[in-house]
Order: sequence, then structure tokens, then C-alpha cells
Amino acid sequence: MTRGPAKQFDPAEAVDQAMNVFWAKGYVGAGLNELLDAMGISRKSLYDTYGSKRGLFLQALDHYVEEFVGRVIKTLESDGSPLKNVRKAFEQLDAPRNKSFSNGCLIGVTMGQFRSDEPEIAEAIRKHLQAIEDAYYRTLKRALKAGELNPKANPRDLARMLTATSQGLTMRRRIDENPAKSRSIIRATMALLDALGPSPSS
Amino acid sequence: MTRGPAKQFDPAEAVDQAMNVFWAKGYVGAGLNELLDAMGISRKSLYDTYGSKRGLFLQALDHYVEEFVGRVIKTLESDGSPLKNVRKAFEQLDAPRNKSFSNGCLIGVTMGQFRSDEPEIAEAIRKHLQAIEDAYYRTLKRALKAGELNPKANPRDLARMLTATSQGLTMRRRIDENPAKSRSIIRATMALLDALGPSPSS
Repeated sequence: MTRGPAKQFDPAEAVDQAMNVFWAKGYVGAGLNELLDAMGISRKSLYDTYGSKRGLFLQALDHYVEEFVGRVIKTLESDGSPLKNVRKAFEQLDAPRNKSFSNGCLIGVTMGQFRSDEPEIAEAIRKHLQAIEDAYYRTLKRALKAGELNPKANPRDLARMLTATSQGLTMRRRIDENPAKSRSIIRATMALLDALGPSPSS
Repeated sequence: MTRGPAKQFDPAEAVDQAMNVFWAKGYVGAGLNELLDAMGISRKSLYDTYGSKRGLFLQALDHYVEEFVGRVIKTLESDGSPLKNVRKAFEQLDAPRNKSFSNGCLIGVTMGQFRSDEPEIAEAIRKHLQAIEDAYYRTLKRALKAGELNPKANPRDLARMLTATSQGLTMRRRIDENPAKSRSIIRATMALLDALGPSPSS
């Protein structure tokens, strides 16, 4: 049952490897042996370090958000036209991250496997979605200030919509490698935001 | 190992029960015993009738699309203002279907559990997403004809965006029972479509 003496390992590097397994398969689909193989650690090390598969998952989810969601938020908050940053963020979300298969978004994958009857995980997902919404909100507020959006636009509503649309965008890439659909989605989203602008006929 | 002689059962009714389990838990999370209990049949009956858990799932997915996606498509295609039908369809997607937990959309749940390296399931999901996109497309074409949308609007792009946004909308309800976010998403989507209309300043 044991796998020999526990090896020294880098817990952060191991969480990164676990994140890739969870991202591809989801929490439920990620087998313990598959996780251990990817992390290169023993079952005992996993339980000693992370407490449980669920404890490991929550750390992997936080790591995903810091790493990948953080990158998108950085794009939204960079200099230049706020609306162009929204487009860049969507394009970044849409870019495949490995040569074989798109994994979509770990937040979306997790929503597909849990419901609010799993309060700890649902709460973590709500927190991460809120951070994404808030980043869109701040960007849209700057777009309003820069005169890129119609003063009548509701930036909170729009931020929530962009959060939903970007989830739908990234998740469909898991089952559709063809980028034509997602390019359409990005074009339509930007056309709608532009139409809200102060000069819709320009 | 056997569960006694196979009982008579209604395969369509049993698929409906299986659909509810898959909808709540996803394919991977739905245990065989949980499926058998919900369906009230023996393991042997399941394999004799549906071939495999996967065969049962594909039938349950088809049943879900006929029943629930079909209802949304019917709303989109009903008489009256096409854009109002889009709003009604979004509201219908957002309405909780049981008193305990929102299950989101079985298509979204499935995208969270499979990728394009499972070609049979990915193909089924792409087909169903295409049917939803086509229904939005026909509705937007009618909106154009009725003068509800700006003639410069691209109905195919918008249909793909509405498909993505509605996926994001329904999936977040799995982990967030509070309807405030989804109402925001619907308001923003309709405000954007209205802004594209021939009289954006009205």
C-alpha cells in the first residue's frame, strides 16, 4: 500500500502539476494515481502536505486563478484603450494553451462538477468569479471615463455579462478545436460594446 | 452480483430519471448504483437496453436537448417580437427547475467533463450547440426583418455570442443560487442588443 519513503519535493511545483490534471479532467475525473504520477509524490506525501484530494484541489484552483486569471486581469488593467483591453483579454482566454487539447477554464470545469450543495467549493468559485467581474467592472469604468462607452451603459451589468460570455467562450473550446466560433463570439461582443459607444453610427 | 430477474420497465421513463442524475452530477460523477437506483432497474437491464453507461448518457443527453433545449427554442420561435423572445429564452434558462439546487445546463456540465479527445461526446455537444446557435440565428434574422436590429448587425456572430453568454449564465447558477447576477447578465445582453437597434438613442 505504501510507496516507499516520502521523497523531498517542491509543494508549489507539485500543485502546478496537479492543476494541469484537474484542468483537463476536473476534480471528479482526476484519479488519485494520475495526480500522484503527475506530481511525482507518494500518497502519504499528498495527504501529509495537502490533507486530502479536496485540499489539494482548492490549492490548485487558487494557483490557477493567480497564474491564468491573473494574467487576464493584468491584460484588462494594462495601459491604453480599456475596450481594446477587453478584446485582448478575450483573445487571450481563447488562445489554446497546449498543442493537444484545449482545457477551457478550470472555474468553468469546476462549475460543471459541483453545485451549491458543496459550499466550500461553490464559495471558492463565487469568489473567483467575483474577482473576474470586478476586473471587467474597473475596465468598463475606465472605458466610460475615456469616452469609449455610452454614459448610459451600466458597467456592473456589462461586467457580469462579460464574465458569463467569456466562460461560455472558453468552455466551448474544450470540445471544439476550430477557432471560428470563438472569433465570432469576440467580434460580436466587441461590436455590441462599440454600438453602446457615444458614436454608434461612426 | 446479479440483482434478480430483470423487471419490466419503460426505457423512456428510465432515461428521464438517468438524465436527472447526469444533470446534477455530470457523466463522471454519476455512479452506476446511483443511476440504477434512480432508474429502478437492474445492472443487467441497463447493459441490455443501453449497452453501456456511455450509451445511456448519450440517450439522456438527446432527451435533455429535446425536452429542455427544445422548450427554449420554442420560446425563441414563438410569435411576437423576436428580441423579446430572446429575453424570454434567457429568463427561461435562468429559472430554477427544482426547489433544491440549480443544475445549470447538461451541455455545459458535459463540456466541463470531456474534451475533444472524446470524439463521440464532443461531436454530440457540438451538434447540440449548433442547434442552439441556429435557433438564435433564425430569431435574429427575424429581428432584422422586423426592424428591431441594426441592418449592420451580424446575426451569425451574435447568435454565437448569445449561445456562449447563455451557457455562462446557466452554469453559474449551479454554484450561485442568488438570481441577482443572472438578472444583470440578461439586462446587459438585452441593453446591448437594443443599442444595436436602428434607434439607439430612443
